Amino acid sequence: MEGEPTLQLRVFDLNCWAIRYLSKRRQERVQLIGDTLRREGFDLVLLQEVWSEQDYSDLKVKLGGCYPFSHYFRSGVIGSGLCVFSRFPILDTLLYQYSLNGYPYMLQHGDWFCGKSVGLSRSRAGASMGVLASRPLFPPSSCQLHAEYCREKDAYLPHRLVQAWELAQFIRHTSKAADVVVLGGDLNMHPEDVGIRLLRGWTGLRDAFAEATRFEGCEDGCTLVPNNCFTVNSELLPFPLGIRIDYILYKAVSSFTVKCEELKTTTGTAPGTDIPFSDHEAVMATLHIQRQGQAAGDTLATAEPTLADVVTEARTEVGVGLRAARRQRYSAGRMAVLALLLLLLQAAAVLGTLAGLAAEQPFPKLSFSLLAFFALGVLLLATGLHLFHTMEVKMLQGTEEQMRMALRALQERP
Amino acid sequence: MEGEPTLQLRVFDLNCWAIRYLSKRRQERVQLIGDTLRREGFDLVLLQEVWSEQDYSDLKVKLGGCYPFSHYFRSGVIGSGLCVFSRFPILDTLLYQYSLNGYPYMLQHGDWFCGKSVGLSRSRAGASMGVLASRPLFPPSSCQLHAEYCREKDAYLPHRLVQAWELAQFIRHTSKAADVVVLGGDLNMHPEDVGIRLLRGWTGLRDAFAEATRFEGCEDGCTLVPNNCFTVNSELLPFPLGIRIDYILYKAVSSFTVKCEELKTTTGTAPGTDIPFSDHEAVMATLHIQRQGQAAGDTLATAEPTLADVVTEARTEVGVGLRAARRQRYSAGRMAVLALLLLLLQAAAVLGTLAGLAAEQPFPKLSFSLLAFFALGVLLLATGLHLFHTMEVKMLQGTEEQMRMALRALQERP
Repeated sequence: MEGEPTLQLRVFDLNCWAIRYLSKRRQERVQLIGDTLRREGFDLVLLQEVWSEQDYSDLKVKLGGCYPFSHYFRSGVIGSGLCVFSRFPILDTLLYQYSLNGYPYMLQHGDWFCGKSVGLSRSRAGASMGVLASRPLFPPSSCQLHAEYCREKDAYLPHRLVQAWELAQFIRHTSKAADVVVLGGDLNMHPEDVGIRLLRGWTGLRDAFAEATRFEGCEDGCTLVPNNCFTVNSELLPFPLGIRIDYILYKAVSSFTVKCEELKTTTGTAPGTDIPFSDHEAVMATLHIQRQGQAAGDTLATAEPTLADVVTEARTEVGVGLRAARRQRYSAGRMAVLALLLLLLQAAAVLGTLAGLAAEQPFPKLSFSLLAFFALGVLLLATGLHLFHTMEVKMLQGTEEQMRMALRALQERP
Repeated sequence: MEGEPTLQLRVFDLNCWAIRYLSKRRQERVQLIGDTLRREGFDLVLLQEVWSEQDYSDLKVKLGGCYPFSHYFRSGVIGSGLCVFSRFPILDTLLYQYSLNGYPYMLQHGDWFCGKSVGLSRSRAGASMGVLASRPLFPPSSCQLHAEYCREKDAYLPHRLVQAWELAQFIRHTSKAADVVVLGGDLNMHPEDVGIRLLRGWTGLRDAFAEATRFEGCEDGCTLVPNNCFTVNSELLPFPLGIRIDYILYKAVSSFTVKCEELKTTTGTAPGTDIPFSDHEAVMATLHIQRQGQAAGDTLATAEPTLADVVTEARTEVGVGLRAARRQRYSAGRMAVLALLLLLLQAAAVLGTLAGLAAEQPFPKLSFSLLAFFALGVLLLATGLHLFHTMEVKMLQGTEEQMRMALRALQERP
């Protein structure tokens, strides 16, 4: 069987940073991305943060000749921002929305309103492929810039871990239908972060950067680099080389082997031009897929005792998040009860006046109504927050329990 | 290979109607369910509408001896209400939340706040099993009681179809990891409804009621029957025998065959007592699972031209829903703009007074402030509705496109 032909798969992955009205030189960059993709003729293109469906449609028209198959994953108010262009037929798609995605009141990050999903599309090109694109929670973890950011990082870590876990579980449950799985995306985590270790360990996915025979691009494979004119350099101060948060991961599921022959990143500017594609660098991998005599089996990447350590570490962090969410749920509940008490007090005062118990109305009408509206506003807001944190508690509990189940399964295995 | 031993799998499915403070004689019924399950010793128990985690915990304690493995699926504010008890180890679980689930302002149905998911657990007992429990959108479709209900039905149908489609897609993408798939649940659809035909056709799942060699229970396998003292009989007037909306569906994925030997339903009262388990009847199936020499293949249940008709019919209904959602999005947007204009007008009047343009304030302060608060309330509400319907439009569009892709694939198949 060694003589089976090798399938070469050239994969392109980019966080396009294409937010209408907000991203700098968006239209110019989307055009540039389209031109490059058409010229280079990849097999598979995974794009994130294509927030405008118009941009997707423009790309689709431009790329129709060399990538006849494509899919835009719709979700949420703004959309998932995920799309796939492919030289091979897309047979089927599925979108999975993460259950937690930051906080609705963190408007400056805006994560709650969008991008909370992983899109799966199936292709066939010699081997059947499960192709996934994802962009989980912003901001990148462990960007320790200053005190506030550190605290933010702490607040977001449990959500990020829930997402990493759900992504891993989704891949485990859906990957059996494919021979080869390719995941591309801005995962917003550094390679040594617990979320990435969890994702890789629990799915057996391999990191194209670590496995590549040849590498060309930014030092250490970084994809958010100070050289890029769109990155905010002050945010990268603790990392003079930049950070690596965009990945191409892959694995063979059935009787196939996959090898990464070459990995490339852009280096601040797109090849042949003077502006970058995006504030992120593009990642381009050349994978070699070959059929093998015997089934490879669904192996886990890391040795199991190590994997158990990673799951335990993640579970501890989720537990920390769970306690914080319970505290916030309690605070919001208390606030709602206080606002309700104030409203009841006011209602009692009004009823008292109407019943003639008080000689005359003790407060001026205007401030009285304003106070009532204020209390009503606080009541609604606090109730909403209480419900939100109740949901958060449930999802964190659910994830913690799933991780416990996974640990038990790991320990029981012979 | 014909000599391979047969695995007998006894499955119990019930919508428990266990809503705290709302469901009649809840605790008594949950106890009764627990006692029966312990006595009967099924292999697999799929419960829906167990909204209180305390009820689940009580059942877990009581059933620990005969069903050592169990899982409660957490989601949303109230929870998914789904749980699984199993005699075989549960290896892994995954929860998939439907993207559309009714309307938040339809408080009387409460669907938006809960139950919007399908839970998947994997077991191994000779054959590996993918076990799914689901309870999609309430109320049951085509319960044509009176004009209002009819209109409601029309409004909900597209959401129900999106859920049926997502459930089918979820099963297609995850079932390859199992030898046998069993889906139990209150699907809130009649057997001849387009949603059920779509689900069965697109996944190849078979209906235990239709396939059973022996049947015992309510006529036509009905699971919402006038005999049951908890059902609201006036709602069943057009269906004197009752309706069948609870199902056990199954299929063999790899080199196995599954046959349904026996199907039973309860008949208004639980066996050996004078009250029913719930307002729904329980469904109990005995499945025979046997390994076969050759792989069965992932066949679709219905002939493909028929399946194409079903997908086309579903797509048409989703299209109707899409147009309605677009209209509602437009109305909500217009309302928000009007409220904003009123607020701006008021702000202009205030500024005018402050600048001394008007001789004196034209309105009394109190009504002026009340009007401003009213406008603000309408603005917030209308904006929320606009965002919600934007999301609805996106999901309906996404489903319609996936159905189009499926139709193309069906037509292109040799």
